[in-house]
Amino acid sequence: MFGVFQRTTMLRTALRHLSKSQPPPVHSQMQFLARGPCLQSVSLSHKLHVGADGSRSSPAAAPHRLPFSRITEEDLALFREILPGRVITDPDLLQSSNEDWLKSVRGSSEVLLRPQTTQEAAKILSYCNSRNLAVNPQGGNTGLVGGSVPVYDEIILSTSLMNNILSFDNISGILTCQAGCVLENLSLYLEERDYMMPLDLGAKGSCHIGGNVATNAGGLRLLRYGSLHGTVLGLEVVLADGQVLDCLSTLRKDNTGYDLKQLFIGSEGTLGVITAISILCPQKPKSVNVVFLGCETFDQLLKTFRLSKGMLGEILSAFEFLDSECMRLLNTHLKLANPISDCPFYIVIETSGSDSDHDSQKLHNFLEEAMTSSLVTDGTIATEDSKIKALWSMRERVTEALTHDGFTYKYDISLPVERIYQLVTDMRQHLGNRARSVVGYGHVGDGNLHLNITSPAKDPALLASIEPFVYEWTAKFHGSISAEHGLGLKKRNYIYYSKSRSAVELMGDIKMLLDPRGILNPYKTLPDHLK
Amino acid sequence: MFGVFQRTTMLRTALRHLSKSQPPPVHSQMQFLARGPCLQSVSLSHKLHVGADGSRSSPAAAPHRLPFSRITEEDLALFREILPGRVITDPDLLQSSNEDWLKSVRGSSEVLLRPQTTQEAAKILSYCNSRNLAVNPQGGNTGLVGGSVPVYDEIILSTSLMNNILSFDNISGILTCQAGCVLENLSLYLEERDYMMPLDLGAKGSCHIGGNVATNAGGLRLLRYGSLHGTVLGLEVVLADGQVLDCLSTLRKDNTGYDLKQLFIGSEGTLGVITAISILCPQKPKSVNVVFLGCETFDQLLKTFRLSKGMLGEILSAFEFLDSECMRLLNTHLKLANPISDCPFYIVIETSGSDSDHDSQKLHNFLEEAMTSSLVTDGTIATEDSKIKALWSMRERVTEALTHDGFTYKYDISLPVERIYQLVTDMRQHLGNRARSVVGYGHVGDGNLHLNITSPAKDPALLASIEPFVYEWTAKFHGSISAEHGLGLKKRNYIYYSKSRSAVELMGDIKMLLDPRGILNPYKTLPDHLK
Repeated sequence: MFGVFQRTTMLRTALRHLSKSQPPPVHSQMQFLARGPCLQSVSLSHKLHVGADGSRSSPAAAPHRLPFSRITEEDLALFREILPGRVITDPDLLQSSNEDWLKSVRGSSEVLLRPQTTQEAAKILSYCNSRNLAVNPQGGNTGLVGGSVPVYDEIILSTSLMNNILSFDNISGILTCQAGCVLENLSLYLEERDYMMPLDLGAKGSCHIGGNVATNAGGLRLLRYGSLHGTVLGLEVVLADGQVLDCLSTLRKDNTGYDLKQLFIGSEGTLGVITAISILCPQKPKSVNVVFLGCETFDQLLKTFRLSKGMLGEILSAFEFLDSECMRLLNTHLKLANPISDCPFYIVIETSGSDSDHDSQKLHNFLEEAMTSSLVTDGTIATEDSKIKALWSMRERVTEALTHDGFTYKYDISLPVERIYQLVTDMRQHLGNRARSVVGYGHVGDGNLHLNITSPAKDPALLASIEPFVYEWTAKFHGSISAEHGLGLKKRNYIYYSKSRSAVELMGDIKMLLDPRGILNPYKTLPDHLK
Repeated sequence: MFGVFQRTTMLRTALRHLSKSQPPPVHSQMQFLARGPCLQSVSLSHKLHVGADGSRSSPAAAPHRLPFSRITEEDLALFREILPGRVITDPDLLQSSNEDWLKSVRGSSEVLLRPQTTQEAAKILSYCNSRNLAVNPQGGNTGLVGGSVPVYDEIILSTSLMNNILSFDNISGILTCQAGCVLENLSLYLEERDYMMPLDLGAKGSCHIGGNVATNAGGLRLLRYGSLHGTVLGLEVVLADGQVLDCLSTLRKDNTGYDLKQLFIGSEGTLGVITAISILCPQKPKSVNVVFLGCETFDQLLKTFRLSKGMLGEILSAFEFLDSECMRLLNTHLKLANPISDCPFYIVIETSGSDSDHDSQKLHNFLEEAMTSSLVTDGTIATEDSKIKALWSMRERVTEALTHDGFTYKYDISLPVERIYQLVTDMRQHLGNRARSVVGYGHVGDGNLHLNITSPAKDPALLASIEPFVYEWTAKFHGSISAEHGLGLKKRNYIYYSKSRSAVELMGDIKMLLDPRGILNPYKTLPDHLK
């Protein structure tokens, strides 16, 4: 969720800047991997790729270009035959697809292809595979780890014109659509039918459902509706060789053989191009409430979480937290006033249900119990939309506040829930006064911490103190170094902190099985020196 | 769910018979694939394997024994070294592991191995792989498609002594345990801690969680808590070559590489042996209600389902149905009285929630609306345990009633929910007066129909009218020919009715990648003539 809010805020900022024709904002956490020219010479630009610390040997830096073929006029002619009027080669038009929206990774693709149908996508991949041309599948290009843009001159295969809703079953709530449908459009379509998407992201206005599935996006509703591995019922995928794999089931139960679609959920476009999705959608809730609470200790916060699960039960839809350092930054940099009295920890709880009276009463009982047993020391509740938004913004705008605090080192960590704040306090102790701020916030409900460390300016010495400490700490407690953002280009070489060598080797074998020439989204997800 | 109730009833029957030392009941739907002697000569017994229609060429019949090695005294000596005192070779002790509990498939394994640790299981598989010895992984042996027992002389690798709970996180509700834990034991353990397992099966008293995951068991709570693809967070698996694949994450979110564990969920022990599981468990509900309703048409039944989703929302935990033919069989054969007035269709709805007053009120409002709008014509409600059980038994005991009606042809079909009853009416029309009864019941909420056809005796001509009609009909509407039971030995060759050729080929490639010698659970899940 955390990354989601982050995205909303940043996206807004970026759009504001763009609309004023100003240069894009330099976000402190960006990794400027490539700033080379857009065309031709970029295939030699890997030396320009640098890591977060400015080092060219950083594990985040791009590897050498692999020996894929280069696009010829004959290739373009063939593409134009398959996709009349939908082969983009104008460098200006290509620019936004070559660069991720964080402006942290820039490729130099010379061609963007926009199929409308699965068959068109299949023809393109079949051809690219035979010609050994690398392909970068692209949805809404809202990823945070450099997975959605080319690293060198990969052909960009965009799903943006594959945006038809194919069917919706009003009884079961099962939606089937093409991969390029924008998440928000699907949400609006469903809302009119009293349903909702089982996932919600800050980037919903531009992200594609195909990209969401390819990256196993988490988002705001994971606590309640679970991950896409559970809600996605079927996928249609074009494999690297152009073969169409039809697993587009619209069934809740199907135990006929291996569940192949699962392989593609979260594989970041490296195993196949998702062209259609069927997904189980829940009823739209009739009542939503938000409360903002204060706790003295993280232990009390965890007890409050446990209590909320028992007393709010089936209506609990979010349990988020931020620490007092976050609140200080919100106060200082954004002039947001604390809606309650000062506390070391703050909680945002959301409920959603089918009966507003029942929900209010459950919430009231829960709050009374939490107060009586001194788990929480103060709190406020919102039922109206505007107040709900105001309370959510205390959680949502932490990232924005951080950007005003200095250069920010950001980590998206998943841990057993009782450990999530220990990493923050250990990091504080470890860094001493070398950092300006060390703050923690995130999704208690999902065991997902966002650890952020600021300093007055980029500080390689500070980074050397943070990494690999943060990854080693996470690995020690069997956490994940990427809870929801994926690995993409930037984190591919950190995979061993969260996955065993045998698991990564098997991933490599599966990649080899499905994409033996490695043309699909090269340089992403899997580490450089696999075998 | 349907299959589950079925199992409860049958299990009880079978146990009753066994305890009286009577011969086991001959269930009409059984396929007597093998009735050969238990030792030595059975490796030649494939000719004894016959299909449901008595034909030896039935797609359900066992294929020829593959050229695996045969067990030698040296092998046994090695096993005894790895598993002192836990190598079973006594034919009497082996019998129950050689035969599935439906008594429909019987193998002739001469050795049962009972490891206690993952390392022991790994040593065994490593050795078996090097010796080309086939292995049948076995949990509680409650499967319904002949997947849990050897077909010939495969070594039985039982998880029954791997039954330790490894950890439980009381805050997140995440349980980690060995694969051989009995589902009911886990449920009892969790109930003491105010949690519950996200799945429940009729066979819970004997099935193992490892087997549940290996077969992607559905069960009674799927409508509410979703499939194991969503609730299983981590797996430890021993691969065919003895390598331990550690994906035993206890995290709700982890996007570091491909989600390998998904491959093993539902692969029926053909890709690896699951040795440990971590699973997300929901809070135990404080209030449970059951209602039994009558409808005039299936269309009204579907509208009632839609209404229940809207008005019961987050507390809806089951929506089951049976038709008037089922009720007739319950009345006739089991003397169970209809609790309401006669109707063409009956519904069983269960709610579970955290507040009994709220749940009652929601249910009351829903029933009022359903009655006022004439969606349902009659109904009764239960809140006490005994009455809840009585109402559930109307749904649960249909299978038992069927066994008294004659020889039964049974189908476990998944379909788009609006189609599920159409198959019953089409089948009735198709068969005319050739069948004694054609009845439909199942899980509306999951789109899972149990179609049952009875005749006075086994009737090859009737079977020829039913099959492949039922499979073709299911395929035409993109349904699944095995919603929750899996394919195992019996249904492996029907896979193409629900999966495309390219999908099945990819399954074969994955099998070849993970188990190149094919030693794991041979003759199961994948069709005979794959490549």
